[in-house]
Amino acid sequence: MRLIGIDPGLGATGWGVIEMDGNRLSHIADGVITSDAKLALPQRLVQLAEGLEAVIAAHRPAEAAVEETFVNRNAVSTLRLGQARGIALLIPARVGLPVAEYLPNLVKKTVVGSGHAAKEQVQMMVRRLLPGALVRTADAADALAVAICHAHHRQTANRIRTALAVEAAQ
Amino acid sequence: MRLIGIDPGLGATGWGVIEMDGNRLSHIADGVITSDAKLALPQRLVQLAEGLEAVIAAHRPAEAAVEETFVNRNAVSTLRLGQARGIALLIPARVGLPVAEYLPNLVKKTVVGSGHAAKEQVQMMVRRLLPGALVRTADAADALAVAICHAHHRQTANRIRTALAVEAAQ
Repeated sequence: MRLIGIDPGLGATGWGVIEMDGNRLSHIADGVITSDAKLALPQRLVQLAEGLEAVIAAHRPAEAAVEETFVNRNAVSTLRLGQARGIALLIPARVGLPVAEYLPNLVKKTVVGSGHAAKEQVQMMVRRLLPGALVRTADAADALAVAICHAHHRQTANRIRTALAVEAAQ
Repeated sequence: MRLIGIDPGLGATGWGVIEMDGNRLSHIADGVITSDAKLALPQRLVQLAEGLEAVIAAHRPAEAAVEETFVNRNAVSTLRLGQARGIALLIPARVGLPVAEYLPNLVKKTVVGSGHAAKEQVQMMVRRLLPGALVRTADAADALAVAICHAHHRQTANRIRTALAVEAAQ
């Protein structure tokens, strides 16, 4: 099963695709979709949408996970990020993927062990958890970390569901 | 030439289509696209996207105008609105429509004459400028007001004054 993690941003949206095989995770691909700051906002959002569609078509993930947003920044940044985030949630949902959302500190806690880990620690742990991944940019590392977080938590969620079903059947 | 105005919101996105024929504006259709608050955010954004696509396919506007957002509200509201607004900008842009943005007080100033007009004044002026428009909801009235604002500002001629003069002469 393939999972895509997405770290949304108007200027740069990171993405990372991993494969789950039982308890094993492996790296498939990662990258950054950028939008041209010289273009008007609607055209920039089209660039993000088309980029995400191309990545999903190329790597065919079965589920998506998107980083949630802290809103304690200034309002103009929050609005800009919200617009890019709308696209990051819409595009996988429109092609039928389940889309999960994870707060940044849960992602860090899952991947590094601390909700307040530095960017470099996230990048280092992503490289250790996904041998062979080059992880060239911080945006792609964050996106891979979201995918890893989803791999972890969807298994837990499935185990809980299974346990509840077993219990209910008894 | 047909224009669509859009007043974005996660729960309710208003839309209004008008026709410009020389100096005359006429009402074609308006409505509100709602999203189901019981669904997860990605599915709600899909509802908004599909609703806007259906409206554009049905009424075939040549240009779109979207209300810009005041960001002096709380950050959570700003983020929610940003996500809905991303969809409102993306959908018309993806089908090749030019998309303009107007701040709410410019819309009010254009339609009512004052940037601080009350909602009821906007609704009343929209009904005067677009005879026959029922304008059943405030969201649809705001969307029609954005469309009227765009009709005015995309032209060098003062179409609003002309429309009022025509009405006054009747």
